[in-house]
Amino acid sequence: MITIPDLIRKKRDGGQLSDDEIKAFIQAVKEKTIQDSQTGAMLMAIWLNGMVSAEIKALTREMMSSGEVMEWPDEWKNFMVDKHSTGGVGDKVSLVLAPALAACGCKVPMISGRGLAHTGGTLDKLESIPGFKVEQSREQILEILDSVGCCIVGQTETLVPADRVLYALRDITSTVDSLPLVTGSIISKKGAESLFALVLDVKFGRAAICKDLESATELAQMLVEAGNGLGIHTAAVLSGMNSTIGRCVGNSVEVIESLETLKGNGPDDLMELVTTQGGLLLVMTGLMSDLSEGRKQISEAVVGGAALSKFQAMMEAQGVNSDTAQLLCSTNADYYSVLRKAKHQLELKAPADGIVLEIDGLVLAQVLHRLGAGRSKAGEPVNHSVGAVLLVSIGQRVTKGDPWLRLHYEDLALTPDQRNHLESALTVGADKKIQTQQKHTLVEKILPEKYQ
Amino acid sequence: MITIPDLIRKKRDGGQLSDDEIKAFIQAVKEKTIQDSQTGAMLMAIWLNGMVSAEIKALTREMMSSGEVMEWPDEWKNFMVDKHSTGGVGDKVSLVLAPALAACGCKVPMISGRGLAHTGGTLDKLESIPGFKVEQSREQILEILDSVGCCIVGQTETLVPADRVLYALRDITSTVDSLPLVTGSIISKKGAESLFALVLDVKFGRAAICKDLESATELAQMLVEAGNGLGIHTAAVLSGMNSTIGRCVGNSVEVIESLETLKGNGPDDLMELVTTQGGLLLVMTGLMSDLSEGRKQISEAVVGGAALSKFQAMMEAQGVNSDTAQLLCSTNADYYSVLRKAKHQLELKAPADGIVLEIDGLVLAQVLHRLGAGRSKAGEPVNHSVGAVLLVSIGQRVTKGDPWLRLHYEDLALTPDQRNHLESALTVGADKKIQTQQKHTLVEKILPEKYQ
Repeated sequence: MITIPDLIRKKRDGGQLSDDEIKAFIQAVKEKTIQDSQTGAMLMAIWLNGMVSAEIKALTREMMSSGEVMEWPDEWKNFMVDKHSTGGVGDKVSLVLAPALAACGCKVPMISGRGLAHTGGTLDKLESIPGFKVEQSREQILEILDSVGCCIVGQTETLVPADRVLYALRDITSTVDSLPLVTGSIISKKGAESLFALVLDVKFGRAAICKDLESATELAQMLVEAGNGLGIHTAAVLSGMNSTIGRCVGNSVEVIESLETLKGNGPDDLMELVTTQGGLLLVMTGLMSDLSEGRKQISEAVVGGAALSKFQAMMEAQGVNSDTAQLLCSTNADYYSVLRKAKHQLELKAPADGIVLEIDGLVLAQVLHRLGAGRSKAGEPVNHSVGAVLLVSIGQRVTKGDPWLRLHYEDLALTPDQRNHLESALTVGADKKIQTQQKHTLVEKILPEKYQ
Repeated sequence: MITIPDLIRKKRDGGQLSDDEIKAFIQAVKEKTIQDSQTGAMLMAIWLNGMVSAEIKALTREMMSSGEVMEWPDEWKNFMVDKHSTGGVGDKVSLVLAPALAACGCKVPMISGRGLAHTGGTLDKLESIPGFKVEQSREQILEILDSVGCCIVGQTETLVPADRVLYALRDITSTVDSLPLVTGSIISKKGAESLFALVLDVKFGRAAICKDLESATELAQMLVEAGNGLGIHTAAVLSGMNSTIGRCVGNSVEVIESLETLKGNGPDDLMELVTTQGGLLLVMTGLMSDLSEGRKQISEAVVGGAALSKFQAMMEAQGVNSDTAQLLCSTNADYYSVLRKAKHQLELKAPADGIVLEIDGLVLAQVLHRLGAGRSKAGEPVNHSVGAVLLVSIGQRVTKGDPWLRLHYEDLALTPDQRNHLESALTVGADKKIQTQQKHTLVEKILPEKYQ
């Protein structure tokens, strides 16, 4: 019989673990028959020696099978879709995309996460809406999908328990950023949702996990392969992540920007991400025959108000008072009559005349994190009202003294160091050349051949 | 402030840990502020990425400083010596060398270990003598060194506590055989003995940790450097370990062979190891001016009976009844009137006429281990009476049917598979060419330049 030390030794020596060996490892993690020191050693061996495609496939499948796998009515099966983003600054795509897909006839059992460090979490954003409950039982999820078509919920205890254990250990053993482990973690959870189609938004740049296009491409390919390995039709988009998505960063302000987008006033970069990802899913489910039609369909659902109705219905189904939901979705809504507004606002001014060449999303997110918008450890509360609104765009001409950023903060004020850091996020210059990666251009789509 | 995940990341990425960083790691191990998963990950990162000389030096020093460091009277300081072997089959050098060195004027606070897997442990061997107590307090050690000059004892709780933690975790995370970790573990314990001189017996071959001369040389150099780094005069010998040392393997039978050696009837290979290692220590302490004189001095102490007297005195000082000690040390002693003899003996016969070309020490040790001579887990009891005595030597001519091995076993009898395995240890052939590594030739000595 093969023992845990044997498995560790094999990976340590650069060997390829068999399906049975990976099954034994994940089962030991699930049943807690492996010691933490052994898991730490195995994670480091995987980090350093990597995994081949067959190992990643087995890892993903075994992690998925470590817990409950959702079941759907037969008539839904070909329309179950979801998306996953590797994490950006101001990334509110889910809030717009889920209701847009529901409006187009998909079922979207979106299981999202919370923010950690500088990355925001979809659940935290939604929880800035009074009454919004992200914890929903399996039965409630079925009910909401039946009546609305989409829900955005937290992970339940029974879903992929092996991932919870491994993630907690990866976090403290400096083994988070291993492509095989990232892939196993992401795709196993999507697999447990029993999806028909999945789109992945793999971000690269200063404010993303992948710092360059090359590593993002590698991750995207791994993710697509692992998704297809579970029988999910999987596509990926690669998108730049140096600045922010849209103009708002922070929980409440991102909900407002999402609602404005659902009312047809969305920023171009956000709409580009929403329509591309949604379009890909519509093509994969067969609801649309090509990507440009798919994009158009999603765009119409957003601009025409159908997605907004779905968002309103979803809010109500997930616990928001119907008056509140209606108010938020009304034209010219007074958002702050419902959402909490931060005690203080502060505008930063442009230091010189010129063109906005760069806005560093990572710096913005780091400062907001320190002011309470994010958490440093899982389980910590976040301050929903802390956030920032960009008042300028890249490429725009500004005059010295023009406000470029409005900061919303609470009792915790900016220190002089933080203010300096925040001010350094803006680069104004005479040069009209703007690095292409500053924009959220979709660089590439990775789509299974039959859809191309 | 640098955190544990930072330290792990640095080693993961192939960086060189600073003295302070290694101190922080070992302190966290000692104070249990590091989680086991993190230690597992760090051990694997060290296993895979190695350590440079400065890191090994710091690791050894910090491990040593994690516990009590012994102190000796000023007049002893230049005569405190010890040896360490990386582990062999039938390795009883300590039992002969400690009293021989004491007879030559050295003080030998020998802290030994127990056997694990196929490797025997000096403490287990001594415990086959009724009454022998390997657990001795610091005060008792001082007293025995004062009156006798040598003791062979177990590690106390207060000595190098970080090693106990790390060793237990290395054992289950497949990170035992990392040269930097092996070096830190061995030399930190010797450092805590506050030695003046140390000799290391680094074994290579089928039945050793190091499978070839090259890796043994690398380990020996690392050990010598780390020892010298703590201010201990350190030398090493490299010796082959394919067969067995002497003719006896097993706890009681090795005690008998050691006593016979102390009575002047020792096998050549054992005497060669004893006189070389002892000789080197006598040169390093300045008691002898060159190695050949040192070897001669040790040899005379063994053959002339002075070492036997020391061994007898040590037994008495460590709890053995004086009649028992005297009986064991008398000429033509009836050893089995004192030591337990196994219930059963079995002789294996040579399968053909020819020359003994090879006796596989690893196979012998593995079978004896299964019959109860060794333990599979720390803390398990061992059966002192189980053992084997070789009745032939390599190079000797045998006739088909000649007995070549006498097995001592208890209730647990040989299975047919074990018998086949044991019989496979002997290779008889027509060829007179015997691989040189079959013999316990000392291949090389690594001695600080000033003694060469």
